[in-house]
Amino acid sequence: MRMAELAERSGESVATIKYYRREGLLPPGEPTAPNQADYGQQHVDRLRLVRVLRDVADLPVAAIRTVLEAVDDPSRPIHEVVGAAHRALDPGQPEPDPEARAMADGVIARAGWQVADDAPARDTLARALAALDVLGVGATEAALDRYVTAADQVAAQEVAVTLDGAEEPSRDVLVTSVVVGTVVFEQVLTAMRRLAQEHHSAVRG
Amino acid sequence: MRMAELAERSGESVATIKYYRREGLLPPGEPTAPNQADYGQQHVDRLRLVRVLRDVADLPVAAIRTVLEAVDDPSRPIHEVVGAAHRALDPGQPEPDPEARAMADGVIARAGWQVADDAPARDTLARALAALDVLGVGATEAALDRYVTAADQVAAQEVAVTLDGAEEPSRDVLVTSVVVGTVVFEQVLTAMRRLAQEHHSAVRG
Repeated sequence: MRMAELAERSGESVATIKYYRREGLLPPGEPTAPNQADYGQQHVDRLRLVRVLRDVADLPVAAIRTVLEAVDDPSRPIHEVVGAAHRALDPGQPEPDPEARAMADGVIARAGWQVADDAPARDTLARALAALDVLGVGATEAALDRYVTAADQVAAQEVAVTLDGAEEPSRDVLVTSVVVGTVVFEQVLTAMRRLAQEHHSAVRG
Repeated sequence: MRMAELAERSGESVATIKYYRREGLLPPGEPTAPNQADYGQQHVDRLRLVRVLRDVADLPVAAIRTVLEAVDDPSRPIHEVVGAAHRALDPGQPEPDPEARAMADGVIARAGWQVADDAPARDTLARALAALDVLGVGATEAALDRYVTAADQVAAQEVAVTLDGAEEPSRDVLVTSVVVGTVVFEQVLTAMRRLAQEHHSAVRG
């Protein structure tokens, strides 16, 4: 397809598409004549991924480029690409103290989850556990295990739907799903949790 | 107990406690002599609640006062107080469009959740569903029902632990648990979900 149709199908303006070309976020099309090129479905998928990284994940161009490099490196297995997307979604935060981090690592090991050492969610979990400690709330192993079970069930379904949904989805389509899933479905899940809390308080109150 | 012991047990400075007294966030103690008063466990609990609302929920004094008014109004059932705390935790955001809101209301009705019409999580859910729509992802009823199930299980456990944990907990203690639970355990749950996503991608990838 020509540039005009690519703009039409992706919902991006020609100016934006040209800007992405210059920034290296979109690969070139197949040249068909001087100053003219042919674009394919992979360009539509790429523009959709860039849009999601920009509008849903709120990433600056540099972070978008980092995610795309992971997507485009065929030597990196898909779970590493998912990890790279998660890292981009979770900008640097203060390091948790080592004791809290050890606690989080223990929970993850008990859950049997294989997760990269530098996954930002390890630190997020550690900071939350440290906050509970400071507040004198603490979290029993039994309570944490219930969250592990809930998170594991949700994530297993999400990954299955993403991987089984399309026949052999391209990595662009896959990462688009992961980012939308991580950011937007997190909002769905947390909103529902608050609603269910209010409901169960009302039922028992 | 005297002011000095109240400061010691609550971890707040005498100056902060006096400030809270002036702002009406802490009820007066029992006067025992001119310029001297006796404080009880309810003052310790109140200071702890104020601290959680300030440090965990990041609320300004005016919003803290609104939550405390709900806590202190015996005519308001506890689920309304939980709702008031949720409302304070979720500052005003743009109204979702009516179609998205109707979709969210439908999901909630199907879940069988009794939730106030103005619960902010209704709008949060509506905005997330609208975002999925714009992104062309959509969410099938089956997918949404899985989130409903996960959220319902987690929240039912959380409410049960909160209400059964102490014998007849005071409303201050209860609302402290709800705020910590809503804010900090939300971080626990979402961090675990990301970890489990990475794990399940690795296992299947």
